[in-house]
Amino acid sequence: MAALRQLGTAVEGNFQGAAGGMVPPSPCVLAPNGSAPRSPAASRREEVAGNGGGGPGLAALRPTPAKPPRGSGKKPFAAPAGGGKPRKRAPLWPAALFVSVAMNVGLVLHHYVNSTSPPHHHHHPQEHQACLVHPEAAGSSSVRRTATQVEPVPKTRAAGAPSTGKPAVTPESVINLDHGDPTMFEEFWRGTGAAAEIVIPGWQTMSYFSDVGNVCWFLEPGLDHEVRRLHRLVGNAAVDGYHVLVGTGSTQLFMAALYALSPPAGAPMSVVSTAPYYSSYPAVTDFLQSGFFRWAGDASSFEGDTYIELVCSPNNPDGTIREAVLSSESGVAVHDLAYYWPQYTPITRRADHDIMLFTVSKSTGHAGTRIGWALVKDRDVAKKMTKFIELNTIGVSKDSQLRAAKVLRAVSDAYELPGAGEEHRLFDYGRRKMAERWSMLREAAAASGIFSLPDETSGYCNFTKDMASTNPAFAWLRCDREDVEDCASFLRGHKILTRSGSQFGADPRYVRVSMLDRDDAYDIFVKRLASLK
Amino acid sequence: MAALRQLGTAVEGNFQGAAGGMVPPSPCVLAPNGSAPRSPAASRREEVAGNGGGGPGLAALRPTPAKPPRGSGKKPFAAPAGGGKPRKRAPLWPAALFVSVAMNVGLVLHHYVNSTSPPHHHHHPQEHQACLVHPEAAGSSSVRRTATQVEPVPKTRAAGAPSTGKPAVTPESVINLDHGDPTMFEEFWRGTGAAAEIVIPGWQTMSYFSDVGNVCWFLEPGLDHEVRRLHRLVGNAAVDGYHVLVGTGSTQLFMAALYALSPPAGAPMSVVSTAPYYSSYPAVTDFLQSGFFRWAGDASSFEGDTYIELVCSPNNPDGTIREAVLSSESGVAVHDLAYYWPQYTPITRRADHDIMLFTVSKSTGHAGTRIGWALVKDRDVAKKMTKFIELNTIGVSKDSQLRAAKVLRAVSDAYELPGAGEEHRLFDYGRRKMAERWSMLREAAAASGIFSLPDETSGYCNFTKDMASTNPAFAWLRCDREDVEDCASFLRGHKILTRSGSQFGADPRYVRVSMLDRDDAYDIFVKRLASLK
Repeated sequence: MAALRQLGTAVEGNFQGAAGGMVPPSPCVLAPNGSAPRSPAASRREEVAGNGGGGPGLAALRPTPAKPPRGSGKKPFAAPAGGGKPRKRAPLWPAALFVSVAMNVGLVLHHYVNSTSPPHHHHHPQEHQACLVHPEAAGSSSVRRTATQVEPVPKTRAAGAPSTGKPAVTPESVINLDHGDPTMFEEFWRGTGAAAEIVIPGWQTMSYFSDVGNVCWFLEPGLDHEVRRLHRLVGNAAVDGYHVLVGTGSTQLFMAALYALSPPAGAPMSVVSTAPYYSSYPAVTDFLQSGFFRWAGDASSFEGDTYIELVCSPNNPDGTIREAVLSSESGVAVHDLAYYWPQYTPITRRADHDIMLFTVSKSTGHAGTRIGWALVKDRDVAKKMTKFIELNTIGVSKDSQLRAAKVLRAVSDAYELPGAGEEHRLFDYGRRKMAERWSMLREAAAASGIFSLPDETSGYCNFTKDMASTNPAFAWLRCDREDVEDCASFLRGHKILTRSGSQFGADPRYVRVSMLDRDDAYDIFVKRLASLK
Repeated sequence: MAALRQLGTAVEGNFQGAAGGMVPPSPCVLAPNGSAPRSPAASRREEVAGNGGGGPGLAALRPTPAKPPRGSGKKPFAAPAGGGKPRKRAPLWPAALFVSVAMNVGLVLHHYVNSTSPPHHHHHPQEHQACLVHPEAAGSSSVRRTATQVEPVPKTRAAGAPSTGKPAVTPESVINLDHGDPTMFEEFWRGTGAAAEIVIPGWQTMSYFSDVGNVCWFLEPGLDHEVRRLHRLVGNAAVDGYHVLVGTGSTQLFMAALYALSPPAGAPMSVVSTAPYYSSYPAVTDFLQSGFFRWAGDASSFEGDTYIELVCSPNNPDGTIREAVLSSESGVAVHDLAYYWPQYTPITRRADHDIMLFTVSKSTGHAGTRIGWALVKDRDVAKKMTKFIELNTIGVSKDSQLRAAKVLRAVSDAYELPGAGEEHRLFDYGRRKMAERWSMLREAAAASGIFSLPDETSGYCNFTKDMASTNPAFAWLRCDREDVEDCASFLRGHKILTRSGSQFGADPRYVRVSMLDRDDAYDIFVKRLASLK
């Protein structure tokens, strides 16, 4: 039973989300590459490996078509047992193409979805977006932008120019709010100028080593300093007596914590979290089938004394404030506090758990920088987590560490330096923005009449010294229409991509909706939602 | 037998290297935290976890002492079964402190070593260097530098200033050439000015996504472009018909390849490489005890049809040019071409293997940037490798990708743009530098009389259009003195840290010596080596 439940849930959790369900009529439907449904057990690894979707027909739509391997006189890839042949699997059909040619935009946007696989299927991001043709590849001659759009989309991107994330949207676009892509914050950082800008000369930080005397030998001392400073400013977490560890995002630190806390022998450690839990937890725990740890499902129904309990607070996906639900001498907790910042929730106490995870992705919005940090009390645990990162990636990008340090410094400076403009206060901006978006969303849900949202809660914020409401980074949206059993599919039919509740160990009548996308996408989303009856 | 061999080798391979053996007399010897030798099986996980060395006595020497966990009213870390108690293990004794106070430098340098554990023990970098007190922490008032030293060591580093890698050395210092830390290249990049400098404004590349239409959705298009351009310039690898994937260093891509090439069910895939093999291969393969793949030792003695063969060419540690030694319909090869660049070896052919791994750490010297790339023919393999990185770290630092693209562009520009100064040609610089260092090393070995080195080989380089000798990034040094059975220990006794041959599945009379450190350290190394009789 437990094993079956594991199989069911492990494949659900996936950062990239799911889009299984209804298939809107579309010219982008491609031929299936297989049709026999498979048992969960048989399909498990493939799902985790995410080898679904696409198919050869897709290539014609890709801006950079993948050519077949050149003949090289060498033998082709050998087929690993059971894995290398054309796969008989529940097909992930590229299924929808939405073409917007209004105003000569020339944007070709689409997504393709899984029409027959179970709702816990998940996809590559390119399985949502692989049909997306870049504006510059589509030969657009002009791009209309909405007033709220902050991201310019040049006609042709300069060679070597940095990427701009997801392409701009129009009122006809598929709106992808499946991922918590925090591009909302770009607007804020466009206003901070040199304070958050970083310059790295060619000769700088070339060594593997950052701080040979530190447990975390690859941690830039400047980042250590700014992390501690910001926590002291905000008051959301204790730092004295803690080791600061840096990771390639908090996901790597999450894996590092599992590695450090699992026993070196015997049965794999059970990893649990109360449902609804972050969909990545089961996927990341199980994707390598480690002998040291294994996903064991919902903490609230877990029976046993030895476990790692993941406590996400405020919780992804539903924004609730959480405490550990299990208690045992041989159980340990890892606290994922990615969202415990003033823009999302009042800061009601200084957290002082044994292991606390944070990330710039959600605190400042710099997801592309891939910097997370852990505050860890125990030295031996800190050493083992460091060892994991050493073996996994031999440390963490110094460039991103330096950038994260600069960005965090800009945040603290705006509150602490005399004369710093109020418009440069990140948490003020973030709270105002999130409150505005939640207000818009509640109005839209009310106008529609078929959706419900978590009740608004509030508390006294020790940081801002006033009462503040919670404004979660995700909306945990329920579709109340009786004939809709799968809310994600229903919304997908209206060109809104969200992540199904089933991926969080919860009812598929729920979906998780990112509240952190750019204004243009968010505005279209709420308007579209309000119109659904 | 095979299992025992695995246990023996898995713990040896480790990027951070080993320093087991002799203990120089030192005031830094700390009390052991245990003394009972353990069986290989019992100690395996701990070794991989690297929970050795240090001990509470170390704290007094640390620049940032780790305080004990604060009382928080919560239960302390529970002890995972068999893992949380004080460990009875072969102790890793912090053992040596070398103090250099010449000319009021105030640098306190040390390393501590393992006196009783078997030679395959490995260590944290801080197990070599944890006693290192930063110059600024030691209150130095002035630092004498050698003429060849390129890295200034300021009296006190500015708050938030970037790290500078390992501290500067003096003629009395322990010289650490255990890691392939490529700081030799700093000198070159100090001369390139704005060409390799990057500026990143606060709002840039905040999204998780870089290229939603690409298999590798988190790859910056600019990096893709510069990678292909550089390979076309150098002629060391085919790029047409290949997918470019980016990883957090090539280590992550190595894991991604194992994940992508292993079967989804059945026995774990055997991972092999011909000895002497890179010490990280076994460690990285086995540290999570994945159910999908397992280290199976030396390829030349492997019996079986299904395997992943790792082919490193030029080989780490011995610089030889290699081809796969196994051949089977159900076997696959991964080619690690990290050192296949003109500064190390003549470019004799355009490699066109199924999976080829590269990294800026060795091509340009930017190890701290943590950027590797893979050239992959097969689309499904590329997708699964991408999936691994998605689950492991949700992509790769955009900042480092942009920096790597800028650096690679500077390399190509110096050869392709008219009027570019010859002094800005990386491979010319690198080859000259490496040839010089190899010449110095051969002279030193001859002067000493107790060491031997691989014979020099040469070939016609298609890139430089002339005959060129090989100048490997590591010296595979053999101690020929009959009473020295463990060369690494012998050299450690003379304050030279290298990596023992035993970590590469080879004879401990050999050591691997990094040829890529800064001039000051290298110069001291060769002088010291020449004096050994």
